[in-house]
Amino acid sequence: MAPNAHSDIETLIEMMARLPGLGPRSARRVVLHLIKKRAVLLLPLAQAMQRVAETARECSRCGNIGTTEICEICTDPERATGTICVVEDVADLWAIERGGAFLGRYHVLGGTLSALDAVGPDDLRIPDLARRVRDEGISEVILALNATVDGQTTAHYIADELADTCVALTSLAQGVPIGGELDYLDDGTISAALKARKGF
Amino acid sequence: MAPNAHSDIETLIEMMARLPGLGPRSARRVVLHLIKKRAVLLLPLAQAMQRVAETARECSRCGNIGTTEICEICTDPERATGTICVVEDVADLWAIERGGAFLGRYHVLGGTLSALDAVGPDDLRIPDLARRVRDEGISEVILALNATVDGQTTAHYIADELADTCVALTSLAQGVPIGGELDYLDDGTISAALKARKGF
Ligand SMILES: [Zn+2]
Ligand SMILES: [Zn+2]
Repeated sequence: MAPNAHSDIETLIEMMARLPGLGPRSARRVVLHLIKKRAVLLLPLAQAMQRVAETARECSRCGNIGTTEICEICTDPERATGTICVVEDVADLWAIERGGAFLGRYHVLGGTLSALDAVGPDDLRIPDLARRVRDEGISEVILALNATVDGQTTAHYIADELADTCVALTSLAQGVPIGGELDYLDDGTISAALKARKGF
Repeated sequence: MAPNAHSDIETLIEMMARLPGLGPRSARRVVLHLIKKRAVLLLPLAQAMQRVAETARECSRCGNIGTTEICEICTDPERATGTICVVEDVADLWAIERGGAFLGRYHVLGGTLSALDAVGPDDLRIPDLARRVRDEGISEVILALNATVDGQTTAHYIADELADTCVALTSLAQGVPIGGELDYLDDGTISAALKARKGF
């Protein structure tokens, strides 16, 4: 683009280029596409983003993203109250929900312990988990963490933290490949791993 | 995601998933990332889109995208007025501008002739091109179309249309691979092809 020309468009391209999975080239293509479809795509997308920016919030209980103080999964009376499935990330929660095999509730850590990135237990929702297990009368905690080094380190840390609560700890079993990340698996694999879960 | 839950977020994911190069999985990742960085990313992005939606427009002379009736390239007094570089798409114009070797003006066709997609000359900016060549005293038209079947069909059609104007027709030469698309080439290749352009 010409230097100093149409800086609003350049700004938009630069912002899009920083999104995960995009880069300068795809950002340029997306922005051109949006401009070509201004009425049916660009304006509605700007408005949808504005609405989400105004309404999206983290559930204060489980860390899921929704539009209310306590999310729809936490308040759903149909869901089992005795089981918590611990995930790293909301993307993992969504992946398990798509599988449709889990009917309990969740706890979203917001990442994994990481010495390299200086992420400690208090940077995650780990203290909250121990509190929930005690306060909500939880009988089973499913550790649905990624099969990565950091994921498994975090799982062991949580197991230690919950050792004195006599809650049953299980982890996803069959079907999760070594080094695999939940959000990249097909829905059937996740459901199978969940059904075949074993003691941790 | 749970059925009927947080429909604003689902709507946003569905819209993002339809953008070129994205899909459901990348759309989910992008939207989660945006929600996590609501203040520094989601809100500014929504506002940048809104601004572009309000200000972006096609140059009425060349079809470039800018913010004014006639774009900054068309009105730049430093640029040669006798040469027009014909491109399929604004993305190709940007690619040539990044190369920095072309100092004339452009004409953006808005696509290529295509029997399959029923795109005829009047669906593109081809009649405007013939008019510009006559009215603006153009001495050279560079046909910088993609080295695809449709691109080359379009180049030949334009050559026929301009046959009676005695304008010099050239095309990009060295460096454009068969079947290659301009927007995927590196900047140096485009500049070299432009410098080595030959009679059409
Ligand atoms: Zn919740
Ligand atoms: Zn122009």
